[in-house]
Amino acid sequence: MFHISLEHSVGKPMYQQIYQYIVKEIQQGGLACHERLPSARALAQDLNISRNTVNMAYAQLESEGYIEAIERRGYFVNELDGLLSMSGIETKSMKPDPVMTESPYAIDFSPFGIALDHAPYHCFKKLMRETMLDGGRELFQIGDSQGEPGLRRAIKEYLHRSRGVNCSEEQIVIGAGTDYLLMLLTRLFQEPQGIAMENPVYLQAYRVFQNFNYPIFPIPLDEGGLDIQALRSVEAKLVFVTPSHQFPMGIVMPINRRRQLLNWAYEAPDRFIIEDDYDSEFRYQGKPIPSLQGIDTRGRVIYLGTLSKAIAPSIRMGYMVLPEQLYQQYRKRAAFYATTVSRIHQETVRRFLAEGYFERHLNRMRGIYRSKHDYILKELARWGEAVSYIGHSAGLHLLLEFPNDGLSEKELTLRAREEGIGVYPLSAYYIAGQPKRPALLLGYANLQEAEIKKGMNALEKAWKIPTLQENQPVL
Amino acid sequence: MFHISLEHSVGKPMYQQIYQYIVKEIQQGGLACHERLPSARALAQDLNISRNTVNMAYAQLESEGYIEAIERRGYFVNELDGLLSMSGIETKSMKPDPVMTESPYAIDFSPFGIALDHAPYHCFKKLMRETMLDGGRELFQIGDSQGEPGLRRAIKEYLHRSRGVNCSEEQIVIGAGTDYLLMLLTRLFQEPQGIAMENPVYLQAYRVFQNFNYPIFPIPLDEGGLDIQALRSVEAKLVFVTPSHQFPMGIVMPINRRRQLLNWAYEAPDRFIIEDDYDSEFRYQGKPIPSLQGIDTRGRVIYLGTLSKAIAPSIRMGYMVLPEQLYQQYRKRAAFYATTVSRIHQETVRRFLAEGYFERHLNRMRGIYRSKHDYILKELARWGEAVSYIGHSAGLHLLLEFPNDGLSEKELTLRAREEGIGVYPLSAYYIAGQPKRPALLLGYANLQEAEIKKGMNALEKAWKIPTLQENQPVL
Repeated sequence: MFHISLEHSVGKPMYQQIYQYIVKEIQQGGLACHERLPSARALAQDLNISRNTVNMAYAQLESEGYIEAIERRGYFVNELDGLLSMSGIETKSMKPDPVMTESPYAIDFSPFGIALDHAPYHCFKKLMRETMLDGGRELFQIGDSQGEPGLRRAIKEYLHRSRGVNCSEEQIVIGAGTDYLLMLLTRLFQEPQGIAMENPVYLQAYRVFQNFNYPIFPIPLDEGGLDIQALRSVEAKLVFVTPSHQFPMGIVMPINRRRQLLNWAYEAPDRFIIEDDYDSEFRYQGKPIPSLQGIDTRGRVIYLGTLSKAIAPSIRMGYMVLPEQLYQQYRKRAAFYATTVSRIHQETVRRFLAEGYFERHLNRMRGIYRSKHDYILKELARWGEAVSYIGHSAGLHLLLEFPNDGLSEKELTLRAREEGIGVYPLSAYYIAGQPKRPALLLGYANLQEAEIKKGMNALEKAWKIPTLQENQPVL
Repeated sequence: MFHISLEHSVGKPMYQQIYQYIVKEIQQGGLACHERLPSARALAQDLNISRNTVNMAYAQLESEGYIEAIERRGYFVNELDGLLSMSGIETKSMKPDPVMTESPYAIDFSPFGIALDHAPYHCFKKLMRETMLDGGRELFQIGDSQGEPGLRRAIKEYLHRSRGVNCSEEQIVIGAGTDYLLMLLTRLFQEPQGIAMENPVYLQAYRVFQNFNYPIFPIPLDEGGLDIQALRSVEAKLVFVTPSHQFPMGIVMPINRRRQLLNWAYEAPDRFIIEDDYDSEFRYQGKPIPSLQGIDTRGRVIYLGTLSKAIAPSIRMGYMVLPEQLYQQYRKRAAFYATTVSRIHQETVRRFLAEGYFERHLNRMRGIYRSKHDYILKELARWGEAVSYIGHSAGLHLLLEFPNDGLSEKELTLRAREEGIGVYPLSAYYIAGQPKRPALLLGYANLQEAEIKKGMNALEKAWKIPTLQENQPVL
């Protein structure tokens, strides 16, 4: 049984103390992978506390992916994966230019960071070993140009469950990353198509369409995302949107705006919406909003997602769900392109999805990111009204907005970088015009709480932010 | 399912009845464009006939362009307007052709076959295990968009040793297969470039440039390969060649022709030669001829190669060596595209190359392919002068040429396929005009000697070739 010394006086709820004890045990190996936890009833009896307190601790452990409930059998410790190395800090981040893998900053608030120390390396290695052991010759032969049917089925099921995406596995094309899939998408059209893009924009997508000579129409955003009136004023046939968490503004597109966007597409037979559903896994406020694809009734949404970000950035694997009309174009024009993804990796990732590891991993990451998210908001609260922020209800970064009569974006960025702190000016993502006020992107996914705190302190100093006194009451 | 009333007494083979029924259905719209046909197995069961009969009907429909086989997905109805413009016996279908995983033929002389039973699976598995054991976190992080420097170095050294290629590792770009690398290559030019291609041609490359709206100039071949006079008569800036073993004719381009080709490129500053050095590893006669890249002194050759074919087709990995001028364009226009190849596979293949496994494997394969090559030539000798062959001094296939007063290519192909023998008509690879005489591609890489013998016997019967008596002296 556990040796938990519960302290009733430390001002920390008891369920938190139990939670922390068990997390530590798992991290230090005192609780092995797949080991069974005592039942809530037994532990409550043992510690002489209410069963409900234990249940709360177990629920938190489960929601963060440390343990897993198996019906009628109890709670079991999950695979360790990145958990063991939680103390080891890695600050490498994904940049828009992927050549840069090492950050030049001591603390890097990169919006492209992910919590690499929690990546499911061990689990992925294990599944890879299993794949190689179980797999026959076919693993070494070239497969379906669209991607292996088994993997497409697993993706279809995951997308249906978690994002309300409605499609058959036929409509899914697997490719070596989003850049490649966008390249392939351009191949379905005879000529470059006019494309409306959010302004500010996800630069990598912008670069692809620019590289393919697509006429690009920058569309301004309001608080609900893409401005539909402005969209109607241009001659675009395609529109590229990031409705789950607009990059870089962080806006979650409300359902009404989604409907308006679909209506725009329905008004002409050759209009399509490209929905890049990046960061859709992470929401901190409000009810989940279904994907655009899920509420599209006429086959006008091209849905894009990636598996690299959640599993391992080095495994180049994304998917594209094509509406029927474009699937026919794919078959006609582009099905001859051989697959770009290793069949060995496809089978490994299929197992990762089909055997439930992926969703457990996402659940755990949701807990980890939520606590980083809450922590950075708490830290930001100290700055009072000197700085405001938006885009924090989802995703892995938020946006700091500064008053126009203070430091410029450039000054803010340079002063921060002089202190060794990486922050990212919003204006870099504008394809036309400039932000209304100075604003910076602040990603937190790859930072520990202590780093966030240290980084915020350094920024406070660099920007000379008049903070509230520690002893002053804080809302 | 189809309502075909098969008549056993009409003196028309059953496969012909099925063929005619489906042609009629397609012409009358009963089968829509892109509709999927029932699988051969299902239809055979339904009609209570042998699967082979259905296969024959489908093979004929495919060879005439009514339907197309999509690897591992089944047969689909083609567009009718495509049929009208069809000149050859096989339409230029959108079928990805690298390696057929399931052949519809009992013995398949596919020119794309490789000796899968000799592929280095065990070694690759071992190196993959070692990679995963030795590798740290960096294996899971995204790497250099050009490919990992260590792998590029290993490729550079291999290419220098074995093919006389002169380059720095900077000039090498790793990508997920030749199709992708050709896509990426088009991205280095602002506009589609006029491209001269060998006629007959390697279809997969033809399809890529066609898909990118590059104006394509078919250039005839003579016994030395691409006709330089004809090349001079067109407005091409690029030329795509397969000098080591012209696909599909099998011509090895002699050194003088190579020099002439380079001189053509030197005559204008924006002319480049794309050298696809496929099958260069396997030569059976004559001295090795250095690659075009190796004798190019002014940076006008783009050198393409693949690692998938020799190691494992499912590992999507090729490389492109860019001349300095185009490397600058790559940096400017296309370096933002994230890598398409898994870093885990890159490291595994780096070990395979750097630790000498690759060259040892190639040496072994050279011996294996040489003995298959010698065997098929010995078998062909029995046919005396009924059939001639060319393209046998290198590579993994040769070309059978038939007299004009005998069976047509179509008849030769269909008769062979009726016996369950896959042979491939040369005319399918013509982008303009027709072969001077009926000719068939005969690949032998994936066949055992016994299968080659059995296949040749079946062809001899199907084509009614008057062979020399067994007891007659053979040269």
